[in-house]
This record gives sequence, structure tokens and C-alpha cells, in this order.
Amino acid sequence: MILDLAMSYSGYWGRCLEFLKKNNVEVGRLVRVQAEPSYHGIVMPRYEHSDDTHIVLKLKNGYNVGLEIEKISQIEVEPSPPARKESPEHPHADTSLPKILLLSTGGTIASRIDYRTGGVTPALTAAELNASVPELSQIANIDTEVLFSEYSENLMPEHWARIAERLNSCARSDYKGIIVAHGTDTMQYTAAALSFSLLGFPKPVALVGSQRSSDRPSSDAATNLISAARFLVSTDATGFFVVMHNSSSDDEVACHWGTRVRKNHTSKRNAFQTVGGSPAFIIKNDTIEKNALFCTPKREFAPRISFNERVLLLKYFPGLDPEVMSRAVASGCRAIILEGTGLGHVGKSMYEPIKAAKRKGLFVGMTSQCIDGSVRMTVYDSGRDLLSLGVVPLADMIPETALVKAMWALGNAKDAGEMERLMRENLSFEISN
Amino acid sequence: MILDLAMSYSGYWGRCLEFLKKNNVEVGRLVRVQAEPSYHGIVMPRYEHSDDTHIVLKLKNGYNVGLEIEKISQIEVEPSPPARKESPEHPHADTSLPKILLLSTGGTIASRIDYRTGGVTPALTAAELNASVPELSQIANIDTEVLFSEYSENLMPEHWARIAERLNSCARSDYKGIIVAHGTDTMQYTAAALSFSLLGFPKPVALVGSQRSSDRPSSDAATNLISAARFLVSTDATGFFVVMHNSSSDDEVACHWGTRVRKNHTSKRNAFQTVGGSPAFIIKNDTIEKNALFCTPKREFAPRISFNERVLLLKYFPGLDPEVMSRAVASGCRAIILEGTGLGHVGKSMYEPIKAAKRKGLFVGMTSQCIDGSVRMTVYDSGRDLLSLGVVPLADMIPETALVKAMWALGNAKDAGEMERLMRENLSFEISN
Repeated sequence: MILDLAMSYSGYWGRCLEFLKKNNVEVGRLVRVQAEPSYHGIVMPRYEHSDDTHIVLKLKNGYNVGLEIEKISQIEVEPSPPARKESPEHPHADTSLPKILLLSTGGTIASRIDYRTGGVTPALTAAELNASVPELSQIANIDTEVLFSEYSENLMPEHWARIAERLNSCARSDYKGIIVAHGTDTMQYTAAALSFSLLGFPKPVALVGSQRSSDRPSSDAATNLISAARFLVSTDATGFFVVMHNSSSDDEVACHWGTRVRKNHTSKRNAFQTVGGSPAFIIKNDTIEKNALFCTPKREFAPRISFNERVLLLKYFPGLDPEVMSRAVASGCRAIILEGTGLGHVGKSMYEPIKAAKRKGLFVGMTSQCIDGSVRMTVYDSGRDLLSLGVVPLADMIPETALVKAMWALGNAKDAGEMERLMRENLSFEISN
Repeated sequence: MILDLAMSYSGYWGRCLEFLKKNNVEVGRLVRVQAEPSYHGIVMPRYEHSDDTHIVLKLKNGYNVGLEIEKISQIEVEPSPPARKESPEHPHADTSLPKILLLSTGGTIASRIDYRTGGVTPALTAAELNASVPELSQIANIDTEVLFSEYSENLMPEHWARIAERLNSCARSDYKGIIVAHGTDTMQYTAAALSFSLLGFPKPVALVGSQRSSDRPSSDAATNLISAARFLVSTDATGFFVVMHNSSSDDEVACHWGTRVRKNHTSKRNAFQTVGGSPAFIIKNDTIEKNALFCTPKREFAPRISFNERVLLLKYFPGLDPEVMSRAVASGCRAIILEGTGLGHVGKSMYEPIKAAKRKGLFVGMTSQCIDGSVRMTVYDSGRDLLSLGVVPLADMIPETALVKAMWALGNAKDAGEMERLMRENLSFEISN
């Protein structure tokens, strides 16, 4: 939850603003309010479109309460408590425990409301995140580091590369595993990017996010972090996993393959799902269950950290202007991932731009907007037409994973032949059938 | 299943081709084969990439069998049976039953292998489809009509309009309901298009498809058609529904709201799901269960059959070239439906093209690529930034439905104000929260 605190009366207007100004009360101040009953708390900023008749206090128990200003007989500002001391790196370092690195990149998991100012610390430092979940120190000896602080909708392939470079530098370290705290919006894209660029990485890496900010009673941050730490210290698996709630309660956390996971709900805590199968591991209170299909392929660690963004993920729909593709091709796009219909089709209207793309040597791959199931382009005329135009069927690769893989393959392949070979090969569980 | 019958030895090559030519046997001929055991059946075309050592026969029981040519001691062509008589319009017309119109538009449901020629009739006529499911004549008195014969990946908004016009002409007819046989690839788009363009349509309409062609033992065509007919004759609901298998067995068929349904699997018979809730009706062997939330809104029938295709559905991803949107705007696109991340976000890189679109008066709406859940753009900075740029949050509208609705609204609204009002209003269950 992010609140704009540019003004000290943020979100208040009309009668409320007048009331606060008259009493010299600004957002973020600790106040004692005489009303029925009386309250003691911090004045919170308000959201846009709020009414002008209530002020909001954050009480010591963490709950917010809205108070009608007409019913307030008196409001007094109290001296603010001293600024909270930053947490030390290792609150309770226990050197007998395995070591984990906790890298923070931003996102909801690294956000909290600062109860001292009533405002927001958009980036909770990794150290604070660690300290806010004391259970972690009983599982591992955790080093913390802030790599950057961005909501994940603003992450770009250059950020994937920065995370990959930092992880790469840990490949031979004494960390048992690494947690990457990450926003959930594009977590699946980053997980796929790491899976390809650090193929064969010799340690387990857990991407962990939360759907509710860490200071909310319903936050999933602590459970996800604790489960990830437990998984990392106990598993012999390596590679990249997304570790998030598996049910709406707190008793099950799923550990998804980094290339087969998708955010399939906007807000639920169990928004992430393994597409076309079950998660790699299920972490329960007492056990960690391994998927019978899970194995860590014996693959030599071969980091290839380069992404070429000149790829378009294009979802087909009736009436799509074929020029959208033609213009992308004319403007330097080097690969197209189509999100076709059904078993991997697009309308005949797209044949010309596909031919033009192939004439220019572009890679054109087919995935399905059905998300689940697999592309099969030999069943119908449309599919066979597209095959004969040179469109490459990408089996049951998730469209978003196919996009990321294409950016990676384009950034690393020496020619079109290697690009196509990389795209067709099952490198990191991205193809399951 | 579509087979290319351009040549009379379609799919055969090498030793098989030689064998067939030597014995004067062409694809589609009825043959008697001496081998261990002997067979009697029709020579079928083969798929690409087949070997050159087997020929395939379709037996009378419907099964295909592959025969090794080396083990065939003799093969004789028999006289072909007389051409199958086209089915009459009403095989067993029972005028006491309610009347249903069965409109065929093409798709897998209207495809079959013609056992007489061994080839394919890419469009089973509606009359044949009706005749192939004799149970239908016990439920309703069915008129049949072929509107067109297209696989649905080739359907365009102009086809939506043609279907809508034909249905519109039936609004005051004596049909109790109408079945539209349709390919599954873009069925959800057509269902949404009909829902908006024929708002308040006074009869129930069932879009019915099949995931397996009608002549395959595992075909879902008959069950879906019978269920649709039962639903249409018994319901007091009106409007547009997608009627498809609800489980992988044959005992449950779902009747989805036309604006809330999505093809979520490439091949399963129960590929269609109601997003964000349960289907409107579940049709079982003996019962039709109504969703407790179902109601037919009392809305005056107001057909507005016009679609403007100048809409782009744009899925956001890290590294998306903002120029894809800019170029679309510069080229005359009039509305953009963004498929954002999470609660309805795109990276800051998209702010400039969004501003440019808004300056030109375009409608820009936000949906989520999570598919499930609802856009909520007041929670994070990114969402609030986009709201302030004029992006319209589209609640839990499915992206594909939002696209179709935008094409329809653009085709009918007199100005930008009406366009936005139509997009925000819940017209036909497209918004459920």
C-alpha cells in the first residue's frame, strides 16, 4: 500500500482540511482525540475521492478507525515517538545455521506504512524485512541486501540482467540458497528470465512476493518468506522457483517451477498457479512434498545473461489490424511470439505479415491464449498453413515464458538457426509435454 | 479433423504410393483387403509425416486401422455405395414440440469425414448435423440453416454482424430459442459480440461447439447439442450463452454467460470456463440447475449491430516497445484495451503513448492479464498515475470481452462521452463485482 505524502494534509479537503488546520494537526502526527469513545493514534492520509467529514487514525493495535469530525470535542497533538532504530543486519546471528542471502528488489513485500510518520516507506530494506519476521533467524543465518526498490510493473529486461548478475556472483558462495523479494505483477517474467539466463545455476533460488503489504494483518509476506527459507535450507533441488501461498489460508505454500508459473488472479493470496500441472513442491507446516515429476536436470552451469528486447508478444483476436505486426517488423522487431487461438491459430488476415516477417528472417513462434493445454498445429488447416509459413509451434510453453525465452535466445544466439533450436528445446521445464 | 484431399493418394508416398497405384486403389475407395485378419473399409488419406509402409482403412464401426502393406496378400476395390442422401429438413417433424432454429457457422462441430469418399466435408450442413443427432427431434422441431462455413479463427467482426442480423430477424419469430453452431477458437468473442449488439434479445440463444469433430467416438458435439436444445426449450432465461461440456465425462454440460466465458484449455472437452464465478446453468441428465445469482435483467430489446474494428487489445509485458501503441494511435486506432499486470498496471514506459492517445481523444481501458480477479487502480501509485492519465478501469471484465465491447461501443456511441459511459456500465453481466 503506497500513500502519497507530498502534502502534510494528504487526501484531506473541505471541512476535514479546515478542521485539521484549525487544530494544527498534520498527517503523521500522534494525536489524542476526545470523542465517544476517545482514541489515541496517528493521523493517516486519506485516499482520493474520500469524503470531507471523517479523519482516519491508525491505532496502536494496527487498525484504522474513521472518526466523524463533528463528533470530536477535542484533538491534541502528542510528541512523536523517537524514530525507529534501523534493524541490525543479523538480529540473532547463529553461525551454526545455513546461510541465506535475502535480496530485495521492491514490491509489496518490501512496503510498509511507517507508523511513526503515518506515511509510507516505499522500500522496506531487506534488513527490516528480515527483522520483521523473527522466525527467519531460527531457520537460517540471513544476509540482506537491497538490489533496487521498484514495483515490478516497472521492471524491464535490464533489471532481470541486474538480478541475474548479482545471483551469478553468488554461484560459488557459501549461501545455501537465495531469496529474491519481488513484486508480484511481473514476478513470473523475472522467474523465467533467471531460469534461462542462469541455466544450471547450482543453488536453489526462491522468488518471494506478497499480495498484501507486510504490515497488514492478512499479509502473506511472513508465511511466504518462512516457507521459502525452510525450502532453501532443506532441498537438494537447484534452480528458480516462485514461492507463494497455495491456498487462501496460511497452511500451504507452493513452490512453482519458474517457467511454468502464472499470476492467475489479481488479488488473492494464492494468485500464482503452476500451469498444466502441480507445483514442484508443496510446503506445509511440517513437511515439504516433492512433485513426483520433479527432478533437477544435470546441466552444466552456463550463465548467458543477455536479453534483446526486440520481441513482440502479440495476442490475436478477431479484427486485429495486421499492420500492428507489419509495423513492428518494419521497425526492427526481431522475433514475434503469437498468442493464437485454440491449438495455435490466427486468422488468414495475419498470413501476409507473417510471410513478411519470415522473409526478413524473424523468429515467429506460436503459443495459445487458452493458457492451459498445448499448441498442436497439425490438426487443422489453419495450423498446417502456419507451419508451412515457418511459424514454430511452442508446445505448452506459457506465452509470457515464451516471450522471455525469445528475448533471451535473441540476446544470446549467434544466428537464426540457433535461435530456433533454443526455442524448440526444453531447457528449464518450460515445455512439459 | 480436416484432411487435404486435393490428390487421390493424399498423404501417401514411397512404397505405399507405389502399392496403391499398382492396385488401382485411390483414397476414398471401399476395399476388401486379404491379410491376417481380413478387412473391409474405406482407404483414408494420411497425415503429413506419415511412414510409407502402412495404409489406413476406416472400418464400418468407425475405427481406423493401419495395415502394413507387406502383409497384404490382396486388395480389391469394391463398388462405392450410392451417395448418401441429404437429410430432409425435418426427419421426424413433430409439430407439437417447440421450434428451434439451428444456425451453422462452421467449426469443428460442423466437420466430419465423409465415409463415402473417405474425404472430408469441411462443412456438415446444419441439416446433416441435426440428422446426425436423432435425439434432437424428440426435444424440439428443428429448422436448420447454414449461415456460413468458417473455422472460427477466420471469423471477423463482420461475421459477428451477420450472425446478429440473422438472429435479429428471428426476434419476433415462433422459435423458442436458437442454436448457433460455431468453432470454439473465437466462440467467446462472438458470444460477447451478440450479447452487446442484441442487448435485451427476447429469446435464449445457445452457442454450441465441439472440441472433437462429430464423427469421432469421443466427440462432444452430440451431448452439447442435446443439452443446448433441452436448455432452450425449458428455460425462461433470454440472452446469449455458450453451452459446452463442464467435465471430461459426458454427464454435465455448462451454460456460460456469453460475456463471462473463456476458452481456457486448447483441447479438453471442458475447455470453456466461466471466469470469476460459476456457470449460469448446469445441465445434467435429469435436471437443469440455475445459478443462484442468475437473473434475466428486464431490459428493452435494443439491437445496435455495428462494430468498429479500430480497437487494439494490447498485452503489457516488461520490455514492450511503447511505439507499438504510439504507432497504432498514429495509424487511426480509436480505442485501446490494455491487458495490464496485477490490479491493472503498466510500466512508466507506457505513460507517454497513453498521454498521446488521450490527447487524441481515444478511449483507453484497463483489464488484467491475470484473467481472474478485478482491476483495482486506487491501491498503488502506478494505478493512480494511470487513472490520472485518463485510463478507465474495467473492473473484472475479461480482456477479450472488453475488446469486443469496445468495438461495439465505438461502432454505436455518438461521442467519446457515450463510449466511456457504455464501457463503464454493466450491460450484460460483463462486470460481476
